[in-house]
Amino acid sequence: MKTVLCYGDSLTWGYIPDGSGRHAFRDRWPQVLQAELGDGVHVIADGLNGRATAYDDHLSGFERNAAKTLTTALGTHFPLDLVIIMLGTNDMKHVLCGNAFGSKRGMQRLIEIVRTVPYQFGAKAPAVLIMSPPPLGGDGGEEFKLIFEGGIEQSHLLAGFYNNAALLAGCAFFDAGAVATTSSIDGVHLDAENTRAIGKAIAPIVRDILDL
Amino acid sequence: MKTVLCYGDSLTWGYIPDGSGRHAFRDRWPQVLQAELGDGVHVIADGLNGRATAYDDHLSGFERNAAKTLTTALGTHFPLDLVIIMLGTNDMKHVLCGNAFGSKRGMQRLIEIVRTVPYQFGAKAPAVLIMSPPPLGGDGGEEFKLIFEGGIEQSHLLAGFYNNAALLAGCAFFDAGAVATTSSIDGVHLDAENTRAIGKAIAPIVRDILDL
Amino acid sequence: MKTVLCYGDSLTWGYIPDGSGRHAFRDRWPQVLQAELGDGVHVIADGLNGRATAYDDHLSGFERNAAKTLTTALGTHFPLDLVIIMLGTNDMKHVLCGNAFGSKRGMQRLIEIVRTVPYQFGAKAPAVLIMSPPPLGGDGGEEFKLIFEGGIEQSHLLAGFYNNAALLAGCAFFDAGAVATTSSIDGVHLDAENTRAIGKAIAPIVRDILDL
Amino acid sequence: MKTVLCYGDSLTWGYIPDGSGRHAFRDRWPQVLQAELGDGVHVIADGLNGRATAYDDHLSGFERNAAKTLTTALGTHFPLDLVIIMLGTNDMKHVLCGNAFGSKRGMQRLIEIVRTVPYQFGAKAPAVLIMSPPPLGGDGGEEFKLIFEGGIEQSHLLAGFYNNAALLAGCAFFDAGAVATTSSIDGVHLDAENTRAIGKAIAPIVRDILDL
Amino acid sequence: MKTVLCYGDSLTWGYIPDGSGRHAFRDRWPQVLQAELGDGVHVIADGLNGRATAYDDHLSGFERNAAKTLTTALGTHFPLDLVIIMLGTNDMKHVLCGNAFGSKRGMQRLIEIVRTVPYQFGAKAPAVLIMSPPPLGGDGGEEFKLIFEGGIEQSHLLAGFYNNAALLAGCAFFDAGAVATTSSIDGVHLDAENTRAIGKAIAPIVRDILDL
Amino acid sequence: MKTVLCYGDSLTWGYIPDGSGRHAFRDRWPQVLQAELGDGVHVIADGLNGRATAYDDHLSGFERNAAKTLTTALGTHFPLDLVIIMLGTNDMKHVLCGNAFGSKRGMQRLIEIVRTVPYQFGAKAPAVLIMSPPPLGGDGGEEFKLIFEGGIEQSHLLAGFYNNAALLAGCAFFDAGAVATTSSIDGVHLDAENTRAIGKAIAPIVRDILDL
Repeated sequence: MKTVLCYGDSLTWGYIPDGSGRHAFRDRWPQVLQAELGDGVHVIADGLNGRATAYDDHLSGFERNAAKTLTTALGTHFPLDLVIIMLGTNDMKHVLCGNAFGSKRGMQRLIEIVRTVPYQFGAKAPAVLIMSPPPLGGDGGEEFKLIFEGGIEQSHLLAGFYNNAALLAGCAFFDAGAVATTSSIDGVHLDAENTRAIGKAIAPIVRDILDL
Repeated sequence: MKTVLCYGDSLTWGYIPDGSGRHAFRDRWPQVLQAELGDGVHVIADGLNGRATAYDDHLSGFERNAAKTLTTALGTHFPLDLVIIMLGTNDMKHVLCGNAFGSKRGMQRLIEIVRTVPYQFGAKAPAVLIMSPPPLGGDGGEEFKLIFEGGIEQSHLLAGFYNNAALLAGCAFFDAGAVATTSSIDGVHLDAENTRAIGKAIAPIVRDILDL
Repeated sequence: MKTVLCYGDSLTWGYIPDGSGRHAFRDRWPQVLQAELGDGVHVIADGLNGRATAYDDHLSGFERNAAKTLTTALGTHFPLDLVIIMLGTNDMKHVLCGNAFGSKRGMQRLIEIVRTVPYQFGAKAPAVLIMSPPPLGGDGGEEFKLIFEGGIEQSHLLAGFYNNAALLAGCAFFDAGAVATTSSIDGVHLDAENTRAIGKAIAPIVRDILDL
Repeated sequence: MKTVLCYGDSLTWGYIPDGSGRHAFRDRWPQVLQAELGDGVHVIADGLNGRATAYDDHLSGFERNAAKTLTTALGTHFPLDLVIIMLGTNDMKHVLCGNAFGSKRGMQRLIEIVRTVPYQFGAKAPAVLIMSPPPLGGDGGEEFKLIFEGGIEQSHLLAGFYNNAALLAGCAFFDAGAVATTSSIDGVHLDAENTRAIGKAIAPIVRDILDL
Repeated sequence: MKTVLCYGDSLTWGYIPDGSGRHAFRDRWPQVLQAELGDGVHVIADGLNGRATAYDDHLSGFERNAAKTLTTALGTHFPLDLVIIMLGTNDMKHVLCGNAFGSKRGMQRLIEIVRTVPYQFGAKAPAVLIMSPPPLGGDGGEEFKLIFEGGIEQSHLLAGFYNNAALLAGCAFFDAGAVATTSSIDGVHLDAENTRAIGKAIAPIVRDILDL
Repeated sequence: MKTVLCYGDSLTWGYIPDGSGRHAFRDRWPQVLQAELGDGVHVIADGLNGRATAYDDHLSGFERNAAKTLTTALGTHFPLDLVIIMLGTNDMKHVLCGNAFGSKRGMQRLIEIVRTVPYQFGAKAPAVLIMSPPPLGGDGGEEFKLIFEGGIEQSHLLAGFYNNAALLAGCAFFDAGAVATTSSIDGVHLDAENTRAIGKAIAPIVRDILDL
């Protein structure tokens, strides 16, 4: 049995763009990935709304700084064969970070964490696949503009920066923006179809990484 | 689709008593529960080795104090129908707490957290089932004695205290010690058979809570 | 006896605009409110210089992030009938947040805290009255400009944003800028007269909320 | 106007021994002290249930370690003429500290904090009066015994230790056990009469310290 | 024997501009200062790459916020005759602070810490010498621009702001930019020669402060 | 140039048993070691009074839990050839840990930290030498007994436990109790002669580890 941890934000949790709640279980991309990979792989979903790569956000009672929570998530689910990290959207909030390069650096810290955690029983660090989220859209309304000032342009740079980070770190990279686009309803989140598309698209990549 | 979160320590993670690693996926009790309940329920396993109810333990790089991590776990997996919490074994370590009453109080804090987390979208707090772990055994060897001095006797009191806490809080309770016993190899952990027994035993209780 | 907690920053503490110290007890707005309401109400003042809604500020040895301290303040003074929160001025500092929308979001987090704190003895969460501080003035000098770059314009937006937050949360709102203006000496703080004006102005509102 | 901060635990908050809630405002000792001292002094009550001197307690959502919260309380209420600290009862909990000498050391740390906080405007550190709480009684029931194992004996030593700490630090000391006894209902808390007795008894001492 | 603590960032650690590692021991400025001062003085180097004055940076596993670590460094090395603090370069990162005035305020907090730490045995707070680092250069490449947007201009203001902070605090000041310039290779760090120049230049100042 | 970090508590800081202050520079064991090893090695002393291996102690304003500070110390002084850790005495305090096995586990966590820190520039983790401190003596007076109840016996077990931890971890071990004894004045600290003895005794071991 191979084990894969999907670590992300609301795009992984399954936030419905109209704010009405959470996508059905079968429509979330980790579950779609699970269905694609079949019973020989166990896919774990760990998506927290508002999660950022390495930036504090005290507007929530939940700890949103992945650099503060990833270690314990890895300790909980190891031994792992693969960790897929899709983050960056919330870094685009002006007050958190506001630029794509900051997300690259946050992602580099997360990769470092994956590789230096003191796993028990001599377990090896898992492979890493980092994913850039689909760029922010332009129709997010007034609140969107206030939160993400300048973020649309920056979010388009995430794929390039993450690709470079993956090259430097020797890990895998996928641009989720290549198969999914953010909803025009809020310019941030994904409808069910686009969420499913991510799970479907990365299945062959994951199979390849897992030697399936 | 109903969703159940299993929150625990090494007994939930699946620690093999001889220290050789982790039980096979199918032998861990959350997975056995998943198999029993079938496709209409999604069972999430969140077990961290060494996790305590509400006591700090800095001997690990992982945050082991459940009172510091449960909130974010709930924010990650909500909306939830049920949270099953099986903790207490590590509280028996002399340096952490060392007595069963302290575990009852820790469990009461965790129940309080489940019920007061600011879930988004007006989601309701899930039902809670607390479980007392099987009592510590007496053959744990020298290190066991040093860590768990006095803990064997105290661990036998956990079921009574948790039962009382459940009554006071109006939540469900199950004594895992009724269907499972700790391995004679280390006096703490469960072999595969005993781990499976827990998942099997609570399936009807969970079905009842979930109105299945 | 009704109890009211006034939670704020230097405007609540009573900072004299010329930096010479603290307003006399009788000139601070919580005390003016106390005098207006009479002996049947106990008004508690909790104002910390530099306090922000939900943003870290490590330039002080005091914990200035209200999102990290409000819970304990509520636990200290409950049972409470009303919490009045006047914050936002310090959020306007560029390095902390720098925009009014961020203060709205910080205020929303504080309202959430008031409503989800696990009060003992089944005590109910108090009513909430949020207040927007008087907008920053333009004569604050060189240091003011460096700290509050862009903040003057933003501070004028606080009233509108807080009004909206109050509507969404179903709590009360008052624009302190309607009865008080910041001193021309530093563009941030209030002289005694303007501080007193706030206590006087909200007395009927508080009486109404408290059913006096 | 002189200002006095009363910093304590449930004995200062006004916990009714039968667990039914909080003493009436006029029965809490800080308020009795206020009445005794009259309008020329402002007495601030800051009592949190479960507060310890310098020991962590994660069984509560409120920060109970005074060594982590006192600094900010001082920053909130300065300039102060006097800080009265009555703590120690909760230190007697076995899991927190369990011995009176530990409370002395905790109290010494709190005195150190009072004296080294970077007060603004060149404000001086206030005078300090430390108070030992009335010793624990013997009729606290089963839960009491589990929490305070050995604590009754130790609590009788608090007065001697605190007296010594006061001598070493050059601050004032009062043994609240000289005028008040814990209720036989729970062996920990004070009925209204005994709570009032403390406020009455220390009034002349406080007047002396404040040069009234 | 006099003791001097040099507290800084990568410029104190000895970061080689081409990223190849650390300057030789003899080329780091604290060691040059040691050599200049001779055996009657003990110079301690405490430089951490990426250290900021009072701003969080979670892109590293090391605690980079000096306001969170300086207290313990002082407790480790006291009794001290002098603390030299050279920080500010990393504050220029846009996500951390981005302006020189913020560094002045951070430095003021650090001076406050030096002076209010509860040193044991009645040890006195050491003298303080704050140093502004050489301004950022313009040839730092693409990543430099992304991290330090606007920082070049701001870094030129550090000397003036620090000079003013020193005047206000009554401590010593030296502009390291007067004797050293950042390398054209990365626009941030110092080659060996420029690093040595700082140690050499401040030797007479330190001798003067230490009454040697 | 080889670099050695000496990480410890008051025995490394140089606490004079009569509480009068700090040993002269030349009498502290890291400096004696430096003198023995000569100019080709740089020995760094990092001893904090009261430091424990992995246990919290809030009786001080300094962070005494080595598990929380060691990472940053390593980041400050890397690249390192050797880290010498002598801790355990303060763990013997009843409220912190109180037993030697707890110190072994704390030491194991520190070794784990040394080996998993994400050193920059691909620097290797240094070699580790753990040292058990001389056992506590029996004449420490009244306060000693209250702090270290049962600690004398336990402190005699440290050498055995650390030896075992070193074997398991594949690192070096030295029993400082073999060459030094605690002072009869306080039963905890070392006079100058005994402090110097440690530096002298480990010089050949360190030379061996460093291939000198």
